[in-house]
Amino acid sequence: MNGIERIPVPLDVPPDQRKAFQERYDRMTGGSGRLMLFAGDQKMEHLNDDFHGEGIHPDDGDPEHLFRIASRGRIGAFATQFGLIARYAADYRDVPYVVKLNSKTHLVKPLQAEPLSRQWLAVDEVATLRDENDLDIVGVGYTVYLGSEHEAVMLTEAAQIVHRAHRLGLTAILWMYPRGRAVPNEKDPHLIAGAAGAGACLGADFVKLNCPAGNEAMARFEEVVRAAGRSRVLCSGGSRLDEKAFLERLHQQLAAGAGGNATGRNIHQKPLAQAVRFCDAIYAITVEGASVSEGMRLFRGDPGA
Amino acid sequence: MNGIERIPVPLDVPPDQRKAFQERYDRMTGGSGRLMLFAGDQKMEHLNDDFHGEGIHPDDGDPEHLFRIASRGRIGAFATQFGLIARYAADYRDVPYVVKLNSKTHLVKPLQAEPLSRQWLAVDEVATLRDENDLDIVGVGYTVYLGSEHEAVMLTEAAQIVHRAHRLGLTAILWMYPRGRAVPNEKDPHLIAGAAGAGACLGADFVKLNCPAGNEAMARFEEVVRAAGRSRVLCSGGSRLDEKAFLERLHQQLAAGAGGNATGRNIHQKPLAQAVRFCDAIYAITVEGASVSEGMRLFRGDPGA
Amino acid sequence: MNGIERIPVPLDVPPDQRKAFQERYDRMTGGSGRLMLFAGDQKMEHLNDDFHGEGIHPDDGDPEHLFRIASRGRIGAFATQFGLIARYAADYRDVPYVVKLNSKTHLVKPLQAEPLSRQWLAVDEVATLRDENDLDIVGVGYTVYLGSEHEAVMLTEAAQIVHRAHRLGLTAILWMYPRGRAVPNEKDPHLIAGAAGAGACLGADFVKLNCPAGNEAMARFEEVVRAAGRSRVLCSGGSRLDEKAFLERLHQQLAAGAGGNATGRNIHQKPLAQAVRFCDAIYAITVEGASVSEGMRLFRGDPGA
Amino acid sequence: MNGIERIPVPLDVPPDQRKAFQERYDRMTGGSGRLMLFAGDQKMEHLNDDFHGEGIHPDDGDPEHLFRIASRGRIGAFATQFGLIARYAADYRDVPYVVKLNSKTHLVKPLQAEPLSRQWLAVDEVATLRDENDLDIVGVGYTVYLGSEHEAVMLTEAAQIVHRAHRLGLTAILWMYPRGRAVPNEKDPHLIAGAAGAGACLGADFVKLNCPAGNEAMARFEEVVRAAGRSRVLCSGGSRLDEKAFLERLHQQLAAGAGGNATGRNIHQKPLAQAVRFCDAIYAITVEGASVSEGMRLFRGDPGA
Amino acid sequence: MNGIERIPVPLDVPPDQRKAFQERYDRMTGGSGRLMLFAGDQKMEHLNDDFHGEGIHPDDGDPEHLFRIASRGRIGAFATQFGLIARYAADYRDVPYVVKLNSKTHLVKPLQAEPLSRQWLAVDEVATLRDENDLDIVGVGYTVYLGSEHEAVMLTEAAQIVHRAHRLGLTAILWMYPRGRAVPNEKDPHLIAGAAGAGACLGADFVKLNCPAGNEAMARFEEVVRAAGRSRVLCSGGSRLDEKAFLERLHQQLAAGAGGNATGRNIHQKPLAQAVRFCDAIYAITVEGASVSEGMRLFRGDPGA
Repeated sequence: MNGIERIPVPLDVPPDQRKAFQERYDRMTGGSGRLMLFAGDQKMEHLNDDFHGEGIHPDDGDPEHLFRIASRGRIGAFATQFGLIARYAADYRDVPYVVKLNSKTHLVKPLQAEPLSRQWLAVDEVATLRDENDLDIVGVGYTVYLGSEHEAVMLTEAAQIVHRAHRLGLTAILWMYPRGRAVPNEKDPHLIAGAAGAGACLGADFVKLNCPAGNEAMARFEEVVRAAGRSRVLCSGGSRLDEKAFLERLHQQLAAGAGGNATGRNIHQKPLAQAVRFCDAIYAITVEGASVSEGMRLFRGDPGA
Repeated sequence: MNGIERIPVPLDVPPDQRKAFQERYDRMTGGSGRLMLFAGDQKMEHLNDDFHGEGIHPDDGDPEHLFRIASRGRIGAFATQFGLIARYAADYRDVPYVVKLNSKTHLVKPLQAEPLSRQWLAVDEVATLRDENDLDIVGVGYTVYLGSEHEAVMLTEAAQIVHRAHRLGLTAILWMYPRGRAVPNEKDPHLIAGAAGAGACLGADFVKLNCPAGNEAMARFEEVVRAAGRSRVLCSGGSRLDEKAFLERLHQQLAAGAGGNATGRNIHQKPLAQAVRFCDAIYAITVEGASVSEGMRLFRGDPGA
Repeated sequence: MNGIERIPVPLDVPPDQRKAFQERYDRMTGGSGRLMLFAGDQKMEHLNDDFHGEGIHPDDGDPEHLFRIASRGRIGAFATQFGLIARYAADYRDVPYVVKLNSKTHLVKPLQAEPLSRQWLAVDEVATLRDENDLDIVGVGYTVYLGSEHEAVMLTEAAQIVHRAHRLGLTAILWMYPRGRAVPNEKDPHLIAGAAGAGACLGADFVKLNCPAGNEAMARFEEVVRAAGRSRVLCSGGSRLDEKAFLERLHQQLAAGAGGNATGRNIHQKPLAQAVRFCDAIYAITVEGASVSEGMRLFRGDPGA
Repeated sequence: MNGIERIPVPLDVPPDQRKAFQERYDRMTGGSGRLMLFAGDQKMEHLNDDFHGEGIHPDDGDPEHLFRIASRGRIGAFATQFGLIARYAADYRDVPYVVKLNSKTHLVKPLQAEPLSRQWLAVDEVATLRDENDLDIVGVGYTVYLGSEHEAVMLTEAAQIVHRAHRLGLTAILWMYPRGRAVPNEKDPHLIAGAAGAGACLGADFVKLNCPAGNEAMARFEEVVRAAGRSRVLCSGGSRLDEKAFLERLHQQLAAGAGGNATGRNIHQKPLAQAVRFCDAIYAITVEGASVSEGMRLFRGDPGA
Repeated sequence: MNGIERIPVPLDVPPDQRKAFQERYDRMTGGSGRLMLFAGDQKMEHLNDDFHGEGIHPDDGDPEHLFRIASRGRIGAFATQFGLIARYAADYRDVPYVVKLNSKTHLVKPLQAEPLSRQWLAVDEVATLRDENDLDIVGVGYTVYLGSEHEAVMLTEAAQIVHRAHRLGLTAILWMYPRGRAVPNEKDPHLIAGAAGAGACLGADFVKLNCPAGNEAMARFEEVVRAAGRSRVLCSGGSRLDEKAFLERLHQQLAAGAGGNATGRNIHQKPLAQAVRFCDAIYAITVEGASVSEGMRLFRGDPGA
């Protein structure tokens, strides 16, 4: 895994914010250009399904679990909703935050109504929270459901959020998810590549995608990475997976050019200590170029790691 | 019933409003962290169904009945619409008010059209009413119908209202109600837990829920309380119940970690004196840790209470 | 018919507007607390159906007929659209006006599409018209179709209009009409009581309702008046009726606690002189406590009246 | 044809704009109170159907044809879209312009979707164009589809445009067209009278209508003119007609009280010289009270005219 | 091919911006009045379909390919989304840019839902990007789907964008595409002429159209050019075509009065060097009046060219 070409600061970041933007970008990526994003917006997106039940550790039932992990584990940034950050960040000031600006529940399914998720708060309100409390908020996030009949609403909000984030020296991450009646196969690599390019057109610094997996799909992953251009591709962690398989897939994605990963359930459904160690493993592989076996040693807490 | 860990002031409350916010929060909860909310928004939500008819005392036909109760009974706060507060509060200045910022009628049923309730007035207008008249307005309220096809509209309004309330030193209470074609069972405890977590993501100080009841459901109530995290769970009083059964259920909910209750019809459908005494009973149990039998003595007006 | 308890000025009227608000309220009601509203918004609501045809005097074909009546007859206020007031009021400066801020035509029926009527102009524009021309504009009006699938739009506009009117020292009258597929019987007294209470929640000074009529319904009218609380109930005049029957119904409604009436077609479909005398009769009964026979003498222009 | 009573300046024109408003009104009507409007908004409304094809002179294919006619012919005002005026008016500075503020294409038919035409630009932008370039812009125009399910949108925009035009010293012309599934007969004289009254309620100075034609309909035209009150009725020229028949119908409409006409296709589908002479004829009849035969002499360019 | 009459600066360009506007217009058109637009908005419009696959050179997979072509080839302007320009333009400062302000994906087909594409960012934000970075942004672009049931939304946005662009000294290009259930044949020359006129009404400087092709259609192309008036017609390059056939069609369109072309796929699907030479060929024909054979020599890189 080679170093990634340094991405220039986008020109809509005003001159007096470029240094701050670059510092945030570098801090998020440990200077590697690759981001390990701990994604924790599922309490709205999936309600309590990801936090309680079979195979989920009881620790995960309390939202503070997410903050404990984000604080003790090695991560690039922790993405969650504004309300939770405002509520807990006073006790977790060391965490680099990404404020997820829209969210919806999964109650209404695409077959009932086309997906729509709208902006909750202004980027300026995020900047005020950052400045008034000296928090380490490094970016904002937003989901676009490409192919939804409400796509136009989300494309506009996304473009404005990315731009406003840049104006205020923040990075912008777009969750680009093809979804709706017009999308028979959300995981088609060519479609994912299209979503990557769409995120680039919207100006995103990072584009979170449901990356293709499996050998055949990986062969087509290069198309995705190339389509994103200077926007970096984050591969979603997706649903629960065996740790070794997870890290192997991650390593493969990074080797193929991914700009990082965004992992939620595979981290927070574990008990605290284990979740922290899994963060460490993912971070080492993503940012520091560790091997899968090094990652597994970190996860198991082997002395030699 | 133990004391509740003190909830820190959310970071989106600006520094110069934190003391006022904390004082309002403490006043609402009598310093216990638990809130006895007298909920009186039903004149819009249910039109005159809750105020006139079989088993409803004639006192309840006049909106002033609500203010008389709020003034004479012990309550944490009285929630109702702006218009009624502007009309009556000059004569009921001692009442701590929560302004309910949205309401709809129950005329259009979910099977006819997906539920939608929109913000009526700005939080700033509430703050002006408070300041210009030196009223004890302690917070604002808003209902979100999770799972409605119009969910996106309400999530955005809710997030903005909570944030703006915090900016102006006010607390925010969200009524989180799963409803619509996508919601076959509004009272499923796991779904209620999801609604609790969603309220936390939106930044609510208190989340009003249709709490599960019955022994089996109570066993799953812990999931709800944990999911809400530092947002406190208010159990809705719901439809009319025998007083003893009501107080027993309340005691059980509090013992299981509820942060209070929101009771309307079970109070205001009674004649004034009785309604006042029922408030006193609920308050003693909720805020002061009284037992059910102490509560019943207060309700009956026993000298020993 | 007894005097009505003096309604306190709502607290959202700012201190420096309270005297002006009270004076307008008193002038509208002749100090009685009861309002005789000459309702003239039908040129939009019913197009030309109420102004031309069988049983309608030719005088009524010209919009100026309304202004002539309003100027010569005794009325509390004349409600019509901004455009007509701007066009004619220079010649009718003595008339107290209520600006009806929304209107729709009756072309689209509820079975074709749910009723929706939206605000045309801002209350501030009404205040400017008032101040720039020294007109006697005493209030604004707005219609809410409760139970329409578009109810949320109108509830928000209504709440904002009432509040903004109060800020500018103006009274606010809401036409509260249950209508739409969800409303099988628009005249159900219990539903009308609900609409009255809803108007109170919105902060209306007066709530215009399709009041129940007939002996049985009158028995249930008390529920309506009580539900409105300190908002006063105006009974709509409705479709054309024999003058004596009209005045008897009016007298009965007032005796049962109505806060006035809002009459249109029963006045303006008459030739000018007759319309003026009918206004005088309605005013005497509504504001001055005259009997029906005194009213009829005024209508007939009997010397003894 | 008698002189028309002078219409007072509406009171929402601010005092310092009343002189300018009156001068524009007088200039548009040649002091007669009657307006000859050259209507040229069809390039959007009917796309190229009115400008190319069987029976249409090739001159009409170029938008500049409209400006040439407006400049050389006698007209009260020329109504067209802002974009065309901004593009051509530098070369046609002598033309009095009315800026048509909304337009739609005719591609979507009422049976496919209810008609909706929305405001393009603000009246203030029109005033800036006028002032910055010293153009003779005398008013603005807007179409309302009464009876469309989107009627509420257009009523609001219309009311605001009329009011804002008056604030800026401009006249306002409303195209009032009943259309949609709820309108079985767009030309019913009683309905047209309703549309006229609706235009008056909205505050229009002129109401453009599809006037009834034919002897029977003319008998009912008085209802229309009366319903409009002090708003003046402009009869649409409609589709192509023989010149003599056109002028006779016009004369008849004016004799029955019409406040002018709005003619498009019957003018611009002719070659330039002929179109100019037809304007002269229409103007003479409308504003100067000429007879039909005098009009025909002007059209034919007879030396004696 | 003769010179084109100089188009006057539209009057909504304020006096202090007219010189800058004229300079931009002249630079875009090489003083010829004809524009060679390199259209590169397809990464959103067609996702990755135009950038990867059979017959597409691998160079095209990376968005930077577009910038490399725009920088090395001769073009009038390069149109793409704001996000891409902000990301790459620091390295491609010599390119004249047109910011395409709306875009949609092709996932939802017209038979599923009527087409809608909405504005992403304000023209003022484009001007800030231009001024803050001294970029050569010469204009903005916007697509209107005429005949869509959402047409009204796009007509308003288009009119406002054109006007605001002019206020800020920028040119405006409208993509005018008839589309939706109401449009059985998008390529009907008479309909295209209507779209051209509609673009003129909206004030566009250039109107991008799917121009008719083939001898029969070319015979009707004059109608299109005439309908656009002083707005200049750009013919879309459309889907992939043999180079010679492409240049012949282009030459024919220009000879028939087209004001230029807008070409995307026919350029960028080629490898870089070839794409650059094809730009040179198109430019020479469009702006400099070269013949098709001269164009082909440039494309082939013949020494004699």
